[in-house]
Amino acid sequence: MQKLKVLENIWYVAALGEELTTKPIARTICGFPMVLYRGESGKPAALEDRCPHRQAPLSMGNVLGDEIQCNYHGLMFNGSGACTHIPRQDRVPTNMGVSAFAAVERWGFIWIWWGDQSQADDSAIPHLPWTEEAHRRVKYFYFRVNANFQLMADNLLDVSHVDFLHKHSIGSKIDDTAKASEAPKVSFETEVEGNTVTTIRRVHDTLLAGVTAKWHGSEGPVTRVSTGRWEPPNCCIMKLQFQDPDGSINETINMEHIMTPETETTCHYFMDWTWDFGGPDGYPTHDDVDKEQRALIEVDDIPMVEAQQRNIDTFGTDARDVPVKQDKHVNEVHRVLRRMYEEQGITGRTEVTRQAAE
Amino acid sequence: MQKLKVLENIWYVAALGEELTTKPIARTICGFPMVLYRGESGKPAALEDRCPHRQAPLSMGNVLGDEIQCNYHGLMFNGSGACTHIPRQDRVPTNMGVSAFAAVERWGFIWIWWGDQSQADDSAIPHLPWTEEAHRRVKYFYFRVNANFQLMADNLLDVSHVDFLHKHSIGSKIDDTAKASEAPKVSFETEVEGNTVTTIRRVHDTLLAGVTAKWHGSEGPVTRVSTGRWEPPNCCIMKLQFQDPDGSINETINMEHIMTPETETTCHYFMDWTWDFGGPDGYPTHDDVDKEQRALIEVDDIPMVEAQQRNIDTFGTDARDVPVKQDKHVNEVHRVLRRMYEEQGITGRTEVTRQAAE
Amino acid sequence: MQKLKVLENIWYVAALGEELTTKPIARTICGFPMVLYRGESGKPAALEDRCPHRQAPLSMGNVLGDEIQCNYHGLMFNGSGACTHIPRQDRVPTNMGVSAFAAVERWGFIWIWWGDQSQADDSAIPHLPWTEEAHRRVKYFYFRVNANFQLMADNLLDVSHVDFLHKHSIGSKIDDTAKASEAPKVSFETEVEGNTVTTIRRVHDTLLAGVTAKWHGSEGPVTRVSTGRWEPPNCCIMKLQFQDPDGSINETINMEHIMTPETETTCHYFMDWTWDFGGPDGYPTHDDVDKEQRALIEVDDIPMVEAQQRNIDTFGTDARDVPVKQDKHVNEVHRVLRRMYEEQGITGRTEVTRQAAE
Repeated sequence: MQKLKVLENIWYVAALGEELTTKPIARTICGFPMVLYRGESGKPAALEDRCPHRQAPLSMGNVLGDEIQCNYHGLMFNGSGACTHIPRQDRVPTNMGVSAFAAVERWGFIWIWWGDQSQADDSAIPHLPWTEEAHRRVKYFYFRVNANFQLMADNLLDVSHVDFLHKHSIGSKIDDTAKASEAPKVSFETEVEGNTVTTIRRVHDTLLAGVTAKWHGSEGPVTRVSTGRWEPPNCCIMKLQFQDPDGSINETINMEHIMTPETETTCHYFMDWTWDFGGPDGYPTHDDVDKEQRALIEVDDIPMVEAQQRNIDTFGTDARDVPVKQDKHVNEVHRVLRRMYEEQGITGRTEVTRQAAE
Repeated sequence: MQKLKVLENIWYVAALGEELTTKPIARTICGFPMVLYRGESGKPAALEDRCPHRQAPLSMGNVLGDEIQCNYHGLMFNGSGACTHIPRQDRVPTNMGVSAFAAVERWGFIWIWWGDQSQADDSAIPHLPWTEEAHRRVKYFYFRVNANFQLMADNLLDVSHVDFLHKHSIGSKIDDTAKASEAPKVSFETEVEGNTVTTIRRVHDTLLAGVTAKWHGSEGPVTRVSTGRWEPPNCCIMKLQFQDPDGSINETINMEHIMTPETETTCHYFMDWTWDFGGPDGYPTHDDVDKEQRALIEVDDIPMVEAQQRNIDTFGTDARDVPVKQDKHVNEVHRVLRRMYEEQGITGRTEVTRQAAE
Repeated sequence: MQKLKVLENIWYVAALGEELTTKPIARTICGFPMVLYRGESGKPAALEDRCPHRQAPLSMGNVLGDEIQCNYHGLMFNGSGACTHIPRQDRVPTNMGVSAFAAVERWGFIWIWWGDQSQADDSAIPHLPWTEEAHRRVKYFYFRVNANFQLMADNLLDVSHVDFLHKHSIGSKIDDTAKASEAPKVSFETEVEGNTVTTIRRVHDTLLAGVTAKWHGSEGPVTRVSTGRWEPPNCCIMKLQFQDPDGSINETINMEHIMTPETETTCHYFMDWTWDFGGPDGYPTHDDVDKEQRALIEVDDIPMVEAQQRNIDTFGTDARDVPVKQDKHVNEVHRVLRRMYEEQGITGRTEVTRQAAE
């Protein structure tokens, strides 16, 4: 089997914590079919989804204790991938085992270590404490996307699409064809520190529209402040605030958008959205957030990104990106990724080398 | 991207006129994904369906004036494929443009020029004046077919299938297993003039059945006169008449069946059907024609042609055609096509070289 | 076209007798598209599903007498594949013919001879007389499976899966994690004679569960006696009995499970199930057997075997089987098959060479 040539020795999100139960899930991570389950003790496990006896998926089996039993002939495996039981047989052959992946539940996500398992290091998991803050509510999402992971991540790294793709929901009220000089003033800063890229983008004196106006309780004018920190492999740690003319900020949305490769042209998209405004039972409720975010992501973003992927598949090497000025944050992230891929000897990642020479 | 190796410097039909509005259409022509739209001035446009910024399909965008705006980041392109606007940016990079195709609306179809755009020549569009004659009614159709364009065109060039495949609708009343000497007399003439192949086929003293009897108002006997002119790339210009024993002709149906390649194994099938009989509101109405033709084409022809394609895909080089005497018109057209392909240096078009040596 | 490299000069089941009527069936056998039909005389026929004129499937045509007429242009072919009629033409070209396969109806199945047609020998058809015994009822089944034929056959050769996959229907009442020493005693004998492998498996003093308890009229304890005879290419001739402590046997189920390759990764699964117990109209009726067997095969077995196939496709050469002691019968059959493949010069049949070295 050909595993994907993606960044190794790093944590990928494989599931939401709330997805994981004693009923196993089949999910392909980095091209590798895994079974994910929660043992009866609560501990998450991630194994190769293949019984070595006759190739049956373990994900069709049952969890017993912290182990999983293949439903075809009853072989059992523990969370380390060792076979612990073969019916009507005492001896276990030495080659009767499966790959296992370190699996840690933190911040509402299940993180698995991809690479050399002996190097798995909990402290390298991104720090997302707002997901647990008492004054915040949090809603988790999982989407499966028929597009390369980086294409989906780039969507999140690129705030400028909001005014077009999300014009009717979270975009600002703008003139679609406004000259640069006539549009609301934008200031934009990007900083690279090691493998992390942070960005602050301010749209000054802009009018809110759609659900952003509902969140803020008025159309403004406000300064829209979008803060983003990208950490590899593709964790977009984002903050959105609306600053009133008097300088006050009454709403802070923290959210993560985290992409995990499934195959070269499909990915898993994990998300949390946390908010500190509205009454404890008042707007926006969990249901409001669910509807609003699905309307954005399932109706606007994912169809667009999947359409990009289809065009890239069709046009092949003719599909070269001609950059614009607003692509700065995306470009910085791609530069970091190119360096990291090079450090790991990974070639052929066209998502970060598709840019046309001018 | 690999464009299809099909005839170049020629007009292909890309859409029906009635399909084209300011809501863009995505359609692949000759293997090339295009966005087709009608500008607010009414003018048709055909562009590469790919924004060069980030590969989003322009067909997901919006028409503003005679231009189209990408819905991802707001870039705009005119009907010549030039980028006219990039939000928050004054300078347009020189390589920010897309391919454009000459597009002309005529006889109810949108014709696009495939090949060297500087040679686009309106006068080469086939002449179909009956679609605009005052004493005729006209109904347009579009079908998408999962078969190679030539396989679908051959169906139209071959009138002999009518008595079998359309036995219950437009076929004549015949004995399925009749010996050649016992069947109604058929006379058949085919003439090649340059790149055009014309044919006249008369079935003498035959009884009409199904809808043909309804059109004629009786079962006959009549002489069925089918006239066909084929023009490249695959425009089948057809006329059907029923001649009474006294020599009079009371119904003339003019119709076009025009095939445009989508991929090697799929095509677009455009059609008009015009008639000069029946009261202005009487049978056959537009709805009658719609039902009758769909019953023929969607139920009989397209499933058969798609089944041929599947067999050709499966049997590969074993799928060689053993010709029969009735194939004369098809064979003449294939001979012209082989010559034209050779003139353009196009090889590998097995649709016209599949015939077995006897 | 690439036919499958499977055992030749042998009978494969192509259809149930009850499936075959004068309405033709399209079915791919050993990778070769065939049309199967019953002539008006009752005789079965199996032809290449491809009219040599223009590649239309004959299966879209009509049976006239014992011949079949192509529905595109009316050519006719007899059961030997010879063209007998071309409309409006007296002479039949010498190369206007199709492949034909010897087809015999016996024991409720249609057997076709794959290989050198001159060697077709009725006496080599497996002997299944219980399908016609007066004191038995019989129910036939056809399933199409998205898995390699051997993978499906192995499921039937391997009785040990019953206690896990069919735990809630025909399995015995067992402890899923019982040590070998604690489980009901099993005795198991396998014998190879020429190309035939027979097996007897007895589970002693076991409790029946689910439908087996219903068949037997009590939960036992009984000795479960499973007898199997495998004949190539993949005919599993099976008998199931429940022996009471006093040695009496009141129910005998004879059943066949017969696999025929469709493609490398799909197969046809034909089955009969015959029983000698219950009143002539009493439980289990034909409907009871239909529901019970579909619940086992369509809900348990086929999804599992299709999942194995998907894993094998995904993991490729990493998908090597690590055998267990219970695989003895499967292993003996694979050994016979390896020898037979070798005798016929057939290589690359990984279904019988997938086993890992320990």
